Amino acid sequence: MTPNLRADSINDTLNAFCTDSDAYIPGGDGPLAGLTFAAKDIFDVAGYVTGGGNPAWKATHQPADATAWVVRRLVDAGAAMVGKTITDELTRGIFGENVHYGTPVNPRAPGRVPGGSSSGSAAAVAGGLVDFALGSDTGGSVRVPASFCGLYGLRPTHGRIPLEGMLLQAPSYDTIGWFARDAATFAQVGAALLTLENSVDGAPNRPRRLLVAEDAFELAQPEARPALDAVVERIGALFDSVASLRLAPASLVEWSEQQQVLQSREAWESVRHWIDRVNPAFSFEVSDRYVLARSVTDAQVAAAQAGREAIVARMNEVFQDGDTVVVLPTTIGPAPPTGQWVSERHTLRLRNSALTSIAGNTGRPQLSLPLVEMDGLPVGLSLLGNRGADEGLMMLAEAIVVSQR
Amino acid sequence: MTPNLRADSINDTLNAFCTDSDAYIPGGDGPLAGLTFAAKDIFDVAGYVTGGGNPAWKATHQPADATAWVVRRLVDAGAAMVGKTITDELTRGIFGENVHYGTPVNPRAPGRVPGGSSSGSAAAVAGGLVDFALGSDTGGSVRVPASFCGLYGLRPTHGRIPLEGMLLQAPSYDTIGWFARDAATFAQVGAALLTLENSVDGAPNRPRRLLVAEDAFELAQPEARPALDAVVERIGALFDSVASLRLAPASLVEWSEQQQVLQSREAWESVRHWIDRVNPAFSFEVSDRYVLARSVTDAQVAAAQAGREAIVARMNEVFQDGDTVVVLPTTIGPAPPTGQWVSERHTLRLRNSALTSIAGNTGRPQLSLPLVEMDGLPVGLSLLGNRGADEGLMMLAEAIVVSQR
Repeated sequence: MTPNLRADSINDTLNAFCTDSDAYIPGGDGPLAGLTFAAKDIFDVAGYVTGGGNPAWKATHQPADATAWVVRRLVDAGAAMVGKTITDELTRGIFGENVHYGTPVNPRAPGRVPGGSSSGSAAAVAGGLVDFALGSDTGGSVRVPASFCGLYGLRPTHGRIPLEGMLLQAPSYDTIGWFARDAATFAQVGAALLTLENSVDGAPNRPRRLLVAEDAFELAQPEARPALDAVVERIGALFDSVASLRLAPASLVEWSEQQQVLQSREAWESVRHWIDRVNPAFSFEVSDRYVLARSVTDAQVAAAQAGREAIVARMNEVFQDGDTVVVLPTTIGPAPPTGQWVSERHTLRLRNSALTSIAGNTGRPQLSLPLVEMDGLPVGLSLLGNRGADEGLMMLAEAIVVSQR
Repeated sequence: MTPNLRADSINDTLNAFCTDSDAYIPGGDGPLAGLTFAAKDIFDVAGYVTGGGNPAWKATHQPADATAWVVRRLVDAGAAMVGKTITDELTRGIFGENVHYGTPVNPRAPGRVPGGSSSGSAAAVAGGLVDFALGSDTGGSVRVPASFCGLYGLRPTHGRIPLEGMLLQAPSYDTIGWFARDAATFAQVGAALLTLENSVDGAPNRPRRLLVAEDAFELAQPEARPALDAVVERIGALFDSVASLRLAPASLVEWSEQQQVLQSREAWESVRHWIDRVNPAFSFEVSDRYVLARSVTDAQVAAAQAGREAIVARMNEVFQDGDTVVVLPTTIGPAPPTGQWVSERHTLRLRNSALTSIAGNTGRPQLSLPLVEMDGLPVGLSLLGNRGADEGLMMLAEAIVVSQR
């Protein structure tokens, strides 16, 4: 267990924490007593300005009146919040390279990105600076850094954890997730955050039927396939049945294009007036995405909305047996090197989005598990569950650990 | 005359100078001995990094090997370069609001922008911190701040002053200009920079025929018209003939659209690889223009090139009598307030570009004169000359001063 320290007394050699915030909430009694956590700097802490990974955002906002629901919940359960962590600007990014605050170090893959946008939270957990950390996931911002940093990381069922007090990006996709190094701690935090009051299906159960998403595995880098396939083979033994299928009638890339349109529109609506008023300094890459978002037409939105409904219908079919879980790679491969060119990251992001948008478009929970390594670099393997089956995914994660002993 | 000081010993209450550069070159003997000048931070000074108004640019470039031609020329003529001045990022802007380094104060119009992109140079001259200052003008970057700060400011004939050692934006439009508070100092600098060796037409002469560009005056704010018209009336007395005409067969706004396409393409080509590699932090407004520039198609470029040729042909007609000068407002009105929204500035910029692109598209010299005030705020009136007639414009400026005595 990590000592119960404030972030400013932690020797943060990973550039995980925001050095311009000393937000801190001591822990107390409860099921999480003695555990420390960090919160991505998009969660409000009363009395502190939420920075959102962008200096102009921080400079033009007031200290929060209240602490975010999710932070209160964890503190009420006894955990200590030791500090705020670096995020990609306004959560727009999946690689974790923030031009203003620097790139948090990936302790599991030196010289490589930590993944984003919950970059500092993932780095802090992977580096052992805290026991767990909060992130958010709109288009992959928990799952991708979990994959790249070798962590457990959940994108919960959309709507399951209240977003109150969080900087929103695209509300119909936004979720709150968390990271831990081990399945037990992961589930302990889950028990505090996922309760009967916000449950979807009532009593949780562990899925018995595994579906291998062939078209998702085809998107992975060929050199990552042997390690991924070996783990799928191994965990298949924990299920009553294992089958393969293709999720998308045509292509998962098309699916991610629907999310790109809708998420862009929502993201632009979230900040357009602020951008117009403040003219914030963003990295070129982030501005580029907002300019693209501004150009999205109502006709494109309508078409993408219809596309999303078709994706939802198809995935309802896949999950018609509620006892089902789908396995897929979290990312197409391990973390890429830091300092790639904008155009290289763009290409890589589009390929990764084809994997992350399946859960995004359908509001389903997806848990990334640190089960695979390629040349010593972590790659996440994901379990995608039915809506509300968050606890079932955590049960599976613990069963997999037990089966490995 | 301003004391011969280095910028770092000047009490720069105007935020005109770059505080992160102490480039300085002492003056000596020569026709400009005793005069001090400032250089926009796009001109190389050997041993110093040229910052270009953008911290990422500065951080990713090495100190210059050699001093820019134009700076050497002025120093050789005896003037002292006291420091570098703030510019809009990579010269992309005409209002002078730099989100990284702040907005230089407009000493003649408190609470209003100084104009850009040669913002710090104009502020330093208008505030009496130096005798004159160097700027550049691609789409209005000398003329606009001259207008807003009540200064003399020339966009010379394209190609007349060598661009060697200057950060280029769009080479087929880029020019080097300068500011002064009075016509005599202005001409003195001109005599050092415009010589027989770079002359176009041989011996300079003072134009005798004035053409009033009706369609340009129609673009001015209605409330600025009475003051503009009164000055045009008065200076008309210095010419042998005065006539009115419309420059554009259709509209000057269309003319500026040709420049927008071609300048955008050239500007993108100038920095695209650097942007891709560095992912620089720009203001949203500047990124927006680069994203737009990236989207310009070859077909648009070809059409705009044909458009530009038609503009050149039309303006050759207007100037078929070489003894001609065209009068027009430099800007549509006085400086707007600081802190306008991005969308407001965008609209204003497009209207102003319809005035500045006439010279830009045709490579003609344009001298903005501080002859007009509206409610105490300066508005520039411009003389547009034939290619190579830079000296003739300066002669006219001095004749106007004499006529006012």
